[in-house]
Formats: sequence, structure tokens, C-alpha cells
Amino acid sequence: MNEGFTLWFTGLSGAGKSTLANLLADELRLRGHRVEILDGDEVRTNLSKGLGFSKEDRDTNIRRIGWVCRLLARNGVIAISAAISPYREIRDEVRAMHDNFFEVFVKCPVSTLAERDVKGLYKKALAGEIKNFTGVSDPYEEPLKPELIVETDRETQAQSFARLLASLEDKKMINRKGAAR
Amino acid sequence: MNEGFTLWFTGLSGAGKSTLANLLADELRLRGHRVEILDGDEVRTNLSKGLGFSKEDRDTNIRRIGWVCRLLARNGVIAISAAISPYREIRDEVRAMHDNFFEVFVKCPVSTLAERDVKGLYKKALAGEIKNFTGVSDPYEEPLKPELIVETDRETQAQSFARLLASLEDKKMINRKGAAR
Repeated sequence: MNEGFTLWFTGLSGAGKSTLANLLADELRLRGHRVEILDGDEVRTNLSKGLGFSKEDRDTNIRRIGWVCRLLARNGVIAISAAISPYREIRDEVRAMHDNFFEVFVKCPVSTLAERDVKGLYKKALAGEIKNFTGVSDPYEEPLKPELIVETDRETQAQSFARLLASLEDKKMINRKGAAR
Repeated sequence: MNEGFTLWFTGLSGAGKSTLANLLADELRLRGHRVEILDGDEVRTNLSKGLGFSKEDRDTNIRRIGWVCRLLARNGVIAISAAISPYREIRDEVRAMHDNFFEVFVKCPVSTLAERDVKGLYKKALAGEIKNFTGVSDPYEEPLKPELIVETDRETQAQSFARLLASLEDKKMINRKGAAR
């Protein structure tokens, strides 16, 4: 118990990956875990400046995040990635370099995301103004066997979060509430 | 005690950075520390593929190593970098992002390195066959205030290693022998 692992969120932009990642990180710290979030933007600044959004560049970016997650995880940290990571093959490559890996598919249809469109990106992408926009003008390959699927168009944030915590507790990957050391 | 920090070796190719890094990592693990070595070659494969040896690319590579060291160090790991890291400004930038940073200048004159020339690189560099070779055809800026200088042309490996351990013990940055938990 209390050993590191990598928790890998994958899903479209706006589906709720970062929100869940932050909720989870706060809760896990309260429970005594060491946690790091590898957030897409921060990683692009610090590890992947110069990379774009071609398949090759996306793959390189994801491999780098995976490599850093692995370094953290094998040192007792819960490493959380919240990058889109659209390609199954690369996600599975990252999984294969880990002893403990937990993949969460944050599922939400493009139609719902386009309605919400918090950042106005889907409107632009659907109008053809953004190239290589995942789910619109670029592929997103759903995971075939993620450890968990949360459907953020059908459940509240609180429900998704509760299911995520329960699933990690069931697998004894995290401390239970009040069990912090 | 037993908190993470970054131990940063800097020095010319062949000066003895990796050897000392490996000796240190083995000893620190025996003493109960979590340790990761960020080795120049491994990092170039996993974090910096595509980068070359121009000043800009070298700087980017070192910043990335520094960023990963920081992530590890703040999670209780002793992160050891053994990259040449020729530019003072970038090393100091990496230092500035850390709470605990210990810089070791592994000092050895080019003339001695060219005599040893284990990999035959200095011969080629001095003949003009390798561009951007640090210390020959590319700058190396010595640290002005490293925490420690080891002079590998004047001391044995065992002496350098003993001084390094003593210095880390004196600053209470590592466990003493037999104190592993």
C-alpha cells in the first residue's frame, strides 16, 4: 500500500480530465499520498516546447509524459497525467513501461462538448479554423480496456469522482479516508 | 532528514561525472534513500530526441533535466544529474527552481582528458572532426560557487567519492552509514 502508480486520464478537450485530476490530487494528498499532476500545458512548456500537433509530435509528447510518470511512480508518487493522449498505441506503450497503471477514459460525445464549448474551441474547430483538433479534425481512439470509464455527459462531476475514488480503493491502490499516515 | 534534493554534476566529457554518479547512487540506496540518475544519454533518448548540440538545444536539454529533477526532488527523491551542462547561466536557472541543490564541479583539464581519451573523442575533436565538442570546440563555463569541487586529475576516484560523501553528510543532506531506515 501507499506505493506509487500512474493514473492516466484520456479523453477529448473539455471532457473533464483536468477537473477530475485536480479533485483527485487534492483528495489523495489529504489521504497522505505524494501526488504530481502532469498537465498538458505545463508539459508542453517544460518538456515539449517546439512540438506541434502532428501525430508524430503528439506521440513524442505523450511518450515524454509517460517516461516522467514512470520515474515518479517508481519512487512512490501517484503520477497523474491529464493530457488528451488520442492514440491507443502510444497509451498502451506507456502502460507497458509501468508496473502499476490505471487508465481512466473520460468519455463525452463531441456534440455535448460542442454545446458546452467553454473555451469556444469546438466552434472554431467545427468551422475549420483549427487544424488537428482532436475529435473534430484529428482522430481520437477510445481505449478498449481502460480500468475505468466515466461518462461526464451522463453523470455529475461528484458522481464521476466518487466512482473513481471507489475504484481505486477497491483495487487497494489508495488509502481509505482517515487512513493517512 | 531523508528529504529529496538535486545533486548536479557538471564537467567535461570523461571527467568522471557518471562514474561518481553511479558510485553515489549505489551508496545512497544502501543508506535508505530513493535515488534516480538522470543520465545524459538516457535523457537525450527519452526527453530530448531531435535536439542537437547548439547552445539553444543544449540549454533546452538541461532545462528539461532540471525540471524533472525538481519533480523528483520535491517528492523525496535524490535526483542526480550527470550531464555536461556547460553553461553557467542555465545551471543557475536550474538551481533557482530548487529548494535544495548541490552542485559538484568534476574538474579535470582538457590536456589530461585528451591523454586518457577513453572513447577516442578528444582526438577526433582536437583534429576538428567533431563540431561543438565541449572544452575543445565549444565553451565550458566553470561554476563560480559549486558546493564541491573534485579534481579528478589530482585525486583518486576513491578520494573524490569520499570527499563527496563527507560533504553531503556534513550538510546533513544524506543518512550516515548504518542509519538506513
